[in-house]
Amino acid sequence: MCSPSIPALSLSDLGSFHIGGREIELRGQALQTHRYAATGIPTVFDPNGRYLVEQMYVQYFIPSQPRGHVPLLLWHGGGMTGVNYEKTPDGREGWLNAFLRLGWPVYNSDAVERGRSGWPALPESPWSTEPVLMPLEHAVSRFRLAQQGGSVTDADGVSQFPLGDLAQFGKQLSPRWTSTDAPTLDAYRLLLKRVGPAVIVAHSQGGTFAIQAARELPELVRAVVLVEPANPEVEEATVDMHGIPLLMIYGDGIERDARWPRIREKGRVFADAVTQAGGSVDVLDLPAVGIYGNTHMLMMDFNNLDIAALINTWLTKRGLYS
Amino acid sequence: MCSPSIPALSLSDLGSFHIGGREIELRGQALQTHRYAATGIPTVFDPNGRYLVEQMYVQYFIPSQPRGHVPLLLWHGGGMTGVNYEKTPDGREGWLNAFLRLGWPVYNSDAVERGRSGWPALPESPWSTEPVLMPLEHAVSRFRLAQQGGSVTDADGVSQFPLGDLAQFGKQLSPRWTSTDAPTLDAYRLLLKRVGPAVIVAHSQGGTFAIQAARELPELVRAVVLVEPANPEVEEATVDMHGIPLLMIYGDGIERDARWPRIREKGRVFADAVTQAGGSVDVLDLPAVGIYGNTHMLMMDFNNLDIAALINTWLTKRGLYS
Repeated sequence: MCSPSIPALSLSDLGSFHIGGREIELRGQALQTHRYAATGIPTVFDPNGRYLVEQMYVQYFIPSQPRGHVPLLLWHGGGMTGVNYEKTPDGREGWLNAFLRLGWPVYNSDAVERGRSGWPALPESPWSTEPVLMPLEHAVSRFRLAQQGGSVTDADGVSQFPLGDLAQFGKQLSPRWTSTDAPTLDAYRLLLKRVGPAVIVAHSQGGTFAIQAARELPELVRAVVLVEPANPEVEEATVDMHGIPLLMIYGDGIERDARWPRIREKGRVFADAVTQAGGSVDVLDLPAVGIYGNTHMLMMDFNNLDIAALINTWLTKRGLYS
Repeated sequence: MCSPSIPALSLSDLGSFHIGGREIELRGQALQTHRYAATGIPTVFDPNGRYLVEQMYVQYFIPSQPRGHVPLLLWHGGGMTGVNYEKTPDGREGWLNAFLRLGWPVYNSDAVERGRSGWPALPESPWSTEPVLMPLEHAVSRFRLAQQGGSVTDADGVSQFPLGDLAQFGKQLSPRWTSTDAPTLDAYRLLLKRVGPAVIVAHSQGGTFAIQAARELPELVRAVVLVEPANPEVEEATVDMHGIPLLMIYGDGIERDARWPRIREKGRVFADAVTQAGGSVDVLDLPAVGIYGNTHMLMMDFNNLDIAALINTWLTKRGLYS
């Protein structure tokens, strides 16, 4: 698992915490009986009582000699968890390790109701929708993993995604609710208040939260990297990002996809609105600089470390890394 | 977050993977429509397709200069995840860091259907029971956190659990199913086959899996540490553990608890059956050696690092650490 050519990682600390959430109370529910093992003693279970819900799990890794000037927060996309940023489905280094090896203190989280953040399996859900788990086919199509429809713009038409380990990626997919944006944003705000000022690297759905959190707490956000942001919805002609530098990154195969041209266009409208307000947005369409075949899951693509290096170069130019 | 008095941790690798699981397919389900954000485009969602279920998430940390002779696997208990072993609810170092700082390669996992292992939020569950989430009151009582009922045997009657951060512990509680023992054991077996031979440190429900996995794959298990094992059910008069050394550890307040004397007695019967078969079991009742106030959550108690040191001393005596 460890290549001798990779230098050791020296950490001053690693750990985790849950942030945010609230306590709810159940009353008037009937008693249940459970057997916690096939041969276990039947146990009366009283579901009435206090539960903690809507918290967010955060795991952090602090290098002994940081070179990033502030912590770097990894926010994942919809239907997934922070596992996205760890080893890739085919076992290569992911962005968590990449940024850590570069010397960034890294905070990787599971959004509210996903992964280690837990979820309220209770008779009365605090949320108004049911959980959604996407089938593998859906992920392949929505995330352009196979670069379907002849959309790859390079000569070979090869996807950068490790399709040979698609099932391994399928194991990362997580149920999500579509009614939990408010508590998720609450938890992200609290995270910024606890560890900021920080840089946010946000993927897909995470981009929506990053834009909103940065606009509300500009003093706690030094830069935002939006990796194929899913839904940067803009009503106004101008969007004041309070001078926070933004980098938007897009992969390949967007033009000929069924869904992505509309999402890409929203990103263009958003970037224009930020620029109109005097803000700073750099937009990096990878095919435009000769990098082909990237999917929506840039942090897992074969050239994922090259993309991390591009992000780090941009952060260095913004005076956030040395 | 980092005390300058704690030396740096040098890692040759850290990462994660999902192990085990199987693919299932849904057919004939009606299309759904979801809005993935309040202002998002309504999206037709087809739940039909392939899903990966019953996989297990494993995160690993490899020290640059290992002193443990084999990897140390941390298996958590019922209703919880591997987060148990990370920082404590009040932010102290947990057993993951403790064993890593001692020089053990550590593999920390979330059992099947918990935490980052994911769960099948599908119209037809592959499992026969509903998920159970325990209320905070239940955890306090089942885990003897407050050492209720005057059961503390030391002069002060003080629980070692950080009760001031009880809500933080509540955020770690995870829904569990009671019908997933078989796939969970499958995943643990595969983990042993991938990274063993290994030492297993198993808490509560995890102890049941550890005993069974060790009996089936003795060549892959060098020692098992059973931390308040929940249900070591024994039908036979003898239990052949194939010479694998066992350590069983129990905290305080068991005698005067409503449930725990029966569980403790099962542990005694199990230890006797292993000894009858010529096996080696050491049983450490902490109050018997003057260590008082420990709860079921030994890895989070105030003296958690002392308990980790006791485990390491035992492993050293078994020739597994130097």
